[in-house]
Amino acid sequence: MQEITYSNLDTLKSFEALAGRAVPDLPSILDLRRIGDYEIPTGGKLRFNYAARKVDESVLNVLADLAEEAGLSRKYRALLSGEIMNTGERRMVLHHLTRGQLEGDVIENGRSMRAFYRGQLERIYEFTDRVRSGEIRGSTGKTFTDVVQIGIGGSDLGPRALYLALKNSVSRSPEALVLEGHFISNVDPDDAASIVSGIDAERTLFILVSKSGTTQETLTNRDFVIDLLRSRHMKELVPEKHMISVTSETSPLAAKAGYLDSFFIDDYIGGRYSSTSAVGGVILSLAFGRHVFEELLEGAHEADRNALNEDPFRNASMMDALIGVYERNVLGYPSTAVLPYSQALQRFPAHLQQLDMESNGKSVNRFGEELSYHTGPVVFGEPGTNGQHSFYQLLHQGTDIVPLQFIGFTSSQRDSDIEVDGTTSQTKLNANLAAQIIAFAKGKDDPDPNKRFMGNRPSSLIYGPRLNAESLGALLAHFENKVMFQGFLWNVNSFDQEGVQLGKILTSKALSGKNEDRELDAFFSLLSGQK
Amino acid sequence: MQEITYSNLDTLKSFEALAGRAVPDLPSILDLRRIGDYEIPTGGKLRFNYAARKVDESVLNVLADLAEEAGLSRKYRALLSGEIMNTGERRMVLHHLTRGQLEGDVIENGRSMRAFYRGQLERIYEFTDRVRSGEIRGSTGKTFTDVVQIGIGGSDLGPRALYLALKNSVSRSPEALVLEGHFISNVDPDDAASIVSGIDAERTLFILVSKSGTTQETLTNRDFVIDLLRSRHMKELVPEKHMISVTSETSPLAAKAGYLDSFFIDDYIGGRYSSTSAVGGVILSLAFGRHVFEELLEGAHEADRNALNEDPFRNASMMDALIGVYERNVLGYPSTAVLPYSQALQRFPAHLQQLDMESNGKSVNRFGEELSYHTGPVVFGEPGTNGQHSFYQLLHQGTDIVPLQFIGFTSSQRDSDIEVDGTTSQTKLNANLAAQIIAFAKGKDDPDPNKRFMGNRPSSLIYGPRLNAESLGALLAHFENKVMFQGFLWNVNSFDQEGVQLGKILTSKALSGKNEDRELDAFFSLLSGQK
Repeated sequence: MQEITYSNLDTLKSFEALAGRAVPDLPSILDLRRIGDYEIPTGGKLRFNYAARKVDESVLNVLADLAEEAGLSRKYRALLSGEIMNTGERRMVLHHLTRGQLEGDVIENGRSMRAFYRGQLERIYEFTDRVRSGEIRGSTGKTFTDVVQIGIGGSDLGPRALYLALKNSVSRSPEALVLEGHFISNVDPDDAASIVSGIDAERTLFILVSKSGTTQETLTNRDFVIDLLRSRHMKELVPEKHMISVTSETSPLAAKAGYLDSFFIDDYIGGRYSSTSAVGGVILSLAFGRHVFEELLEGAHEADRNALNEDPFRNASMMDALIGVYERNVLGYPSTAVLPYSQALQRFPAHLQQLDMESNGKSVNRFGEELSYHTGPVVFGEPGTNGQHSFYQLLHQGTDIVPLQFIGFTSSQRDSDIEVDGTTSQTKLNANLAAQIIAFAKGKDDPDPNKRFMGNRPSSLIYGPRLNAESLGALLAHFENKVMFQGFLWNVNSFDQEGVQLGKILTSKALSGKNEDRELDAFFSLLSGQK
Repeated sequence: MQEITYSNLDTLKSFEALAGRAVPDLPSILDLRRIGDYEIPTGGKLRFNYAARKVDESVLNVLADLAEEAGLSRKYRALLSGEIMNTGERRMVLHHLTRGQLEGDVIENGRSMRAFYRGQLERIYEFTDRVRSGEIRGSTGKTFTDVVQIGIGGSDLGPRALYLALKNSVSRSPEALVLEGHFISNVDPDDAASIVSGIDAERTLFILVSKSGTTQETLTNRDFVIDLLRSRHMKELVPEKHMISVTSETSPLAAKAGYLDSFFIDDYIGGRYSSTSAVGGVILSLAFGRHVFEELLEGAHEADRNALNEDPFRNASMMDALIGVYERNVLGYPSTAVLPYSQALQRFPAHLQQLDMESNGKSVNRFGEELSYHTGPVVFGEPGTNGQHSFYQLLHQGTDIVPLQFIGFTSSQRDSDIEVDGTTSQTKLNANLAAQIIAFAKGKDDPDPNKRFMGNRPSSLIYGPRLNAESLGALLAHFENKVMFQGFLWNVNSFDQEGVQLGKILTSKALSGKNEDRELDAFFSLLSGQK
């Protein structure tokens, strides 16, 4: 295997070559040939189409050189093989292993890591099957009908986005119980109170999710929930018998005595990359059944396999990453929008926002040296067509260009649809999406400058036949791998998050009452109504 | 009254003076005096604190000159008085009148516009009282328990954000019915199907909201809902007797025969500014009662009154606007984040995203001339503490600076709270918020550059005792007025949205089958699975 070198983006020859190239004019290059050719399957029957991005053959060929020079494939294989890619924290990065084996076994302390993750999954399936069959019941003898995940950040956004994405698509098997999912994340007490007030506690199972077992918000919400249940219910209800945990083996939450059961992850699964581990697996298997989670893993594994292609023209996430870096560092676009034309993906942009901004929002490289170029962009988004009636105004006619990432599906999830004026709602939805790609790319001249559309605004499209567990898994992994490749290009560590630490320290100081920062005290006093 | 002149920002002397000033270094200027002094009441018991924004006396004084030179107060008064401020569409801008009179009567065709809006409100209250008392019932004789708003863009985001913000705070009077609110917006058929599947149609009232009465998504969803109801229910249920409309007097939806009742707005209430009109009034009065909506209007009116102060040091929304323009056009920051420390405000950032980006995402001035400076920024946000575990990494340590707009409250909405480790959840929430302001402003040095926080990242704070209808109204109006003042500064028309038109035209073309744009056809075919 060729040796891997880690170099800053601006030291690479191919990056220099990029800067010297003319910027393609999208209205003049977008044609049928591109729409047919500029497309790569990414897994789960999804295809990544980049015909409407502002790249041409000349740019793409240099991007392919860049992929080679930056050693993207070699670095991905090294990561899969268990190299220490999370350099700051000296950890391996193994979330790909939660969905399958692509390189050799990763062994730690004599244990196969793939076997460990798969073993936890089998334990999860066994447990969730028994809950869904009615064998495992609440402490007052009733079957479970609701499941509430208590977690924050990666223990919340990913699983929540996936749950909502599948909620309408899964046909529940008649012999199993239907479990409705809920999520409590914020330390704001109104969040927990609002969820708990709407459910039947005797029939509810709570999942505590915290890798360290010490997350302040999650422990507070656990105690909050226990307190609420105790105060509302007869003595027979034992809150702890309604709780399971997803945590690391050595964490305080792993104390099995306190909980119904515990399922394990480890330090090699970063929070924002944990949806395909036990963090997402327990709630999704409980709500939808093991076969649905298996399909999701299969879709993700397919996308991981696609990401192994050394040729970026056959590697969707790598191509997506390369074009994104071109947009960020050559064209200078500071943000990007994710626009799924599917209401079921309503919280998917919020998950990608964390995935991308927390991974690559860094100012130092993996050796801790300050960088002199831009890294991760601001990521935001809402489902279309809603966004069209909202912030698209700025995207079309604002003074800044925002590259767009559209997502669309041929069929809706439910079978309910009607024809109005000769077309179904799903057809209208897709006509809107196609229209937006063209409007952004080509624009429209008008004698009235207020009605003029400059066009030349790039977008890409990920699309497939239907949003289901398999395509959702592929979509998730596509973006995870894109973010990973961009991290390699920027030469940052995409797997730590030191930027969250200072806030935690100052919060403890403020709460301790022994705080020497007078300005911190002053703001805390304002908020406490003590002014 | 002094004559009003409309000039581009970069032609103003005070703007030129701004560019020549040294940029204040936040860590070195943030002190107790500022935290006490840099604060303005904005209405509804809320206060706007800008101590942690990157401005000092020198910058602020020039910003005050800029406010005067740009005639911000005169322009606001002109708008209130019914001048044609929506120049492109030749319309007045009268949303302030929905909550009270601040200048002289605005008369159109002999009709007092304030009297018109107030008259509609009285009709709404009368209707909603009769629904809540059980007098008006569904077509099968049952009382209403659920209300579904069908609308998109401004007919959805604002009312939805306000509904969610108040849902947990309002103590419902025992003698009135409790109506649960729902929203259908997307033309994606899964959106409507998912909502309708969860409610009892016999007990549900639908509100169709479209000013023009021709919004494609909304009409499609109406037909979709009628179809679903017909297919599921016995013949006795008459869908139209479960529907009211909020529209303009001349629209096709105003045909009273088809619906239970209609309530009116007009062309002088822009969609994104319509939450305090019948667009928000019907659903909020149905769900919470007329007194709650009255309190919301009162809070908004207070903020509107505050915005009348000619002195920006006493005018919260004007000061907010001025500093925002300084950040955008002098400091060059391309985006801004809205971060409410209240789970109830979960969709408020999405509303502000529309309000701001659709109003000021423009490239031409109010005369249709192209601008050579940046206008509206990208706006995004999620509630804290959730965001802390997600995208805050980039905000703290990313290569771009994103100005932050924090929102916080002393008390939670529900009374449920518990002490863990000696502090309540609400106290922890506020300690987190205070800690973030300090962390962003001051940063922290560290021998390990990966753990270093540069600080010097600006934020402002709007805070008050509690999130209720009154403070929510003030919060809403604060941002509306901020966006208005920024529109005046950038010399754009903040009240039209020509940028949404091209997509509509191309969508119709795609659906017509008589489309000459082959690339549009090609993308539509991909999405239709015809490839």
